[in-house]
Amino acid sequence: MRDATAVQAPPRIPGDETVPAELLDAFHAYERAVVANDLDALDAWFDDAPDTLRGDEGGLLVGHDAISAFRAQRGGVAPRAIERIEHRPLADGTALLVSVSRFDAGGRGLQTQIWRRRAAGWRIVAAHVSARPRAFDRAIWREVGEPLAPAAADGPLSGLSFAVKDLFAIAGSRVGAGNPAYLDEARPATTTAPAVSTLLGGGAALRGIARTDEFAYSIAGDNAHYGTPPNGALPGALPGGSSSGPASAVALGQADIGLATDTAGSIRVPASYQGLWGLRTTHGRVPRRGVLPLAPAFDTVGWLTRDGETLERVASWCLDGDAEAPLPWRFRVPVEALELAEPAVREAFEELLAALGRTAPIERVSIGDLAACHERFRTVQAAEAWRVHGAWLDAHPGALGGAVAARFAAAAEVTPFAEQAAREQLRPFAARVRALVGDAVLILPVVPGPAPSRTAEPDEIDAIRTATLRLTAPAAVAGAPSISAPLLTVPSALGRAPVGVGLIGRAGSDLSLVRLARALADAVS
Amino acid sequence: MRDATAVQAPPRIPGDETVPAELLDAFHAYERAVVANDLDALDAWFDDAPDTLRGDEGGLLVGHDAISAFRAQRGGVAPRAIERIEHRPLADGTALLVSVSRFDAGGRGLQTQIWRRRAAGWRIVAAHVSARPRAFDRAIWREVGEPLAPAAADGPLSGLSFAVKDLFAIAGSRVGAGNPAYLDEARPATTTAPAVSTLLGGGAALRGIARTDEFAYSIAGDNAHYGTPPNGALPGALPGGSSSGPASAVALGQADIGLATDTAGSIRVPASYQGLWGLRTTHGRVPRRGVLPLAPAFDTVGWLTRDGETLERVASWCLDGDAEAPLPWRFRVPVEALELAEPAVREAFEELLAALGRTAPIERVSIGDLAACHERFRTVQAAEAWRVHGAWLDAHPGALGGAVAARFAAAAEVTPFAEQAAREQLRPFAARVRALVGDAVLILPVVPGPAPSRTAEPDEIDAIRTATLRLTAPAAVAGAPSISAPLLTVPSALGRAPVGVGLIGRAGSDLSLVRLARALADAVS
Repeated sequence: MRDATAVQAPPRIPGDETVPAELLDAFHAYERAVVANDLDALDAWFDDAPDTLRGDEGGLLVGHDAISAFRAQRGGVAPRAIERIEHRPLADGTALLVSVSRFDAGGRGLQTQIWRRRAAGWRIVAAHVSARPRAFDRAIWREVGEPLAPAAADGPLSGLSFAVKDLFAIAGSRVGAGNPAYLDEARPATTTAPAVSTLLGGGAALRGIARTDEFAYSIAGDNAHYGTPPNGALPGALPGGSSSGPASAVALGQADIGLATDTAGSIRVPASYQGLWGLRTTHGRVPRRGVLPLAPAFDTVGWLTRDGETLERVASWCLDGDAEAPLPWRFRVPVEALELAEPAVREAFEELLAALGRTAPIERVSIGDLAACHERFRTVQAAEAWRVHGAWLDAHPGALGGAVAARFAAAAEVTPFAEQAAREQLRPFAARVRALVGDAVLILPVVPGPAPSRTAEPDEIDAIRTATLRLTAPAAVAGAPSISAPLLTVPSALGRAPVGVGLIGRAGSDLSLVRLARALADAVS
Repeated sequence: MRDATAVQAPPRIPGDETVPAELLDAFHAYERAVVANDLDALDAWFDDAPDTLRGDEGGLLVGHDAISAFRAQRGGVAPRAIERIEHRPLADGTALLVSVSRFDAGGRGLQTQIWRRRAAGWRIVAAHVSARPRAFDRAIWREVGEPLAPAAADGPLSGLSFAVKDLFAIAGSRVGAGNPAYLDEARPATTTAPAVSTLLGGGAALRGIARTDEFAYSIAGDNAHYGTPPNGALPGALPGGSSSGPASAVALGQADIGLATDTAGSIRVPASYQGLWGLRTTHGRVPRRGVLPLAPAFDTVGWLTRDGETLERVASWCLDGDAEAPLPWRFRVPVEALELAEPAVREAFEELLAALGRTAPIERVSIGDLAACHERFRTVQAAEAWRVHGAWLDAHPGALGGAVAARFAAAAEVTPFAEQAAREQLRPFAARVRALVGDAVLILPVVPGPAPSRTAEPDEIDAIRTATLRLTAPAAVAGAPSISAPLLTVPSALGRAPVGVGLIGRAGSDLSLVRLARALADAVS
């Protein structure tokens, strides 16, 4: 073991001849801190000021505190050595150092640093880092290709690519469900899920298999095994889940369509967090054959896209929706949903309603007790989830990450009596939602607030989860289609953030709902 | 259409309030030039000096000329808009601008620019760019995953991943052979090539399917359809081919093993260009079943790795080589090979021989007329290649990129008489090589010089190809195993560059040859 306290003579590096000794010492000390992931030292070398900068392909951080918080959750860098350095004095006490690092395991990185001499010595005031090129982002994808599977025919989706959530069967591939132990034991599927075949048959190419929260039983978008995909709209924020991989792939432009599932909000939440269009379809309308279930009473298939036009193309092809009657241009706002929204979301939503009200009748209605609805929903969901996965989980103790493990542990305790009671108590609520969408469309914020930070505490994530599911459960309980359209923007600690406007239509109105949402987007823009 | 000559008021961007008007105008004008890919304007905005810097994840360029040459071959960037800017004045007439761009098709980029006020106005003296995150590098990979296929068992290769050249059958996948038309028509394989199964059975996981030059009929490593993979050792240089994808993947640390083929040098050349270890095996020793042929008389299977220890692990498992007798510690240098080497390579090679000579007898020998050998080799190779691929190529006019198309066109003209004559003329040459490796090992530079620049002219590439094949053909003609070990470093226009030392052993001595090369590396270090 190297003695970390020993001061070694820094190695000579091509290009370091002109660097002043004191600056070169600082550079080497900083590099040692990077490789050792010595957080205190890294904090010390970055100028302690609110305008210090650090950027990489994941985004730009401003201020010493933001940089420090980022480092605390990043983990270290792979072993590397500085191979070359370029020094450009910019002014007295200000210097540019650009260095190339070579990683022990192959590949190079590039670091641009602007150093300034402060009273305490040289400090970095701005840095831009290019890490060693990864093959791909394992937090987003499990497999990816050009294409991973080709389109089966020319069609209206020709030229589009799709990311499929790792729950769908593809002949010859395994389903991983976001869990490495499950993937290890999975056998290649012999047939392809119809929801996948339909996209291929419409001309879309399969871009890749994208990550999901474990067994789709979460809405945060983190995964204890593969990491948290980046939020394509709000750097530093959670991506939303459980369709986190497809959503991030689409938001980043790495695929055009996300093929996903929504049991309790798993399409709508990441759509809202990442500024995407997302459709949860009518329960049972899109075949779920070949899709790993979570809670069959609520599981649905749907899609994520960057724009409404693409979502309409996809829905139009996949739903064969020509027989649908158009939806009325009449909206109802569930007042209990507005009460759950954060003030900034409520304000932005009210502004949208004001604009919409110029062309459409809008009525405020009571939808019922959302907390009670969610409580019963989650009882039934838990009972079904345990029925689906309990045997495997019992045989694989310790296979799950923390929050999902806790959720399944609670699910194991739901009694048949409790399940049955919850199911019956949900009936009037479902009837109420169906009545409200009989001759109008429900409109509400998809989520209470914008995507939380990746550094949010588990307690905070849990509180957000509860509030969110109170908003997303009603559509699931009613089996009704629901869309998230990226029509709100609100301030957040991480910058201006998207929030989705949710519409719920009557069962079977899926394509009409997409068209209505597009018309709404036009009406309020 | 936007009128490119119209001067528009630049959009207001969050953060631009403090930027001096003249600098902000320059920033916007430069950004317009980037999006329009206006090369003259881009050249003008970068400070015309030999110490101007531009870096990205692909490497660091120093000097206005190098930056200009890079831009000329890059093509433009995707449509984007600046979303945010951070301005930090560094000194009078020196400013840092860090900006975030948002791409129309999703994803963000980051640009760090240091501007200085010159007599003619503000100019960029240093820039660091993070492009929008791609899903993966399509020049390296066709498909990639974690894993794309799991290991079939625990074994001596457990923990290692491999990139397979896109010529090997994998059950359920298609073979693309570096050509999109061929890939489009390919049907999924029903069985997996034994060379792939053996690695999976030894514990290695399949990381991905990596690119090849079209039908493996090139050694440059460029591909007209998918782009040129980066050289992992020498940024800006060609990767070498035809096993370009596996070689770049291994050099960049994106896989541990490259599973590839070597007909005329397709493993040894990229190994030499990228500082890797590469083994061409004895003809027929590794089963070629399930591998798309090029010229069956010479086609062999082999591997690329970053270090000799891994190559020995792989060869030891795959070759079952316990029955091999060790090779003698005695070397022969073909003087005709040395004459083909560039002066810097010859000098480095002679230094290595001097070091090796302290422990081993080294004899200089004549191997024969390498030009004549190559000429006859390529006649037979061409005839066989046309026999394999001619029918498909006749049915797909225009399917091939330029240089490979020209090569196949010439191949179509080889008469049976010419082929037979060449085959007979090769016999004494093969016998000569076999005699030379009967009780010694041939040692020679793998290639005449380091990897040429990606901007080299076709004529230059062609001359390099001819000289290279004169060095690599003898092992192919003799059916003998040959290794490339990264033991030379020479100066090049792109910086210090690796060059491989080649060893040729007697048929069947493959594993012994790897061990000998490792011993040689130790002896000369």
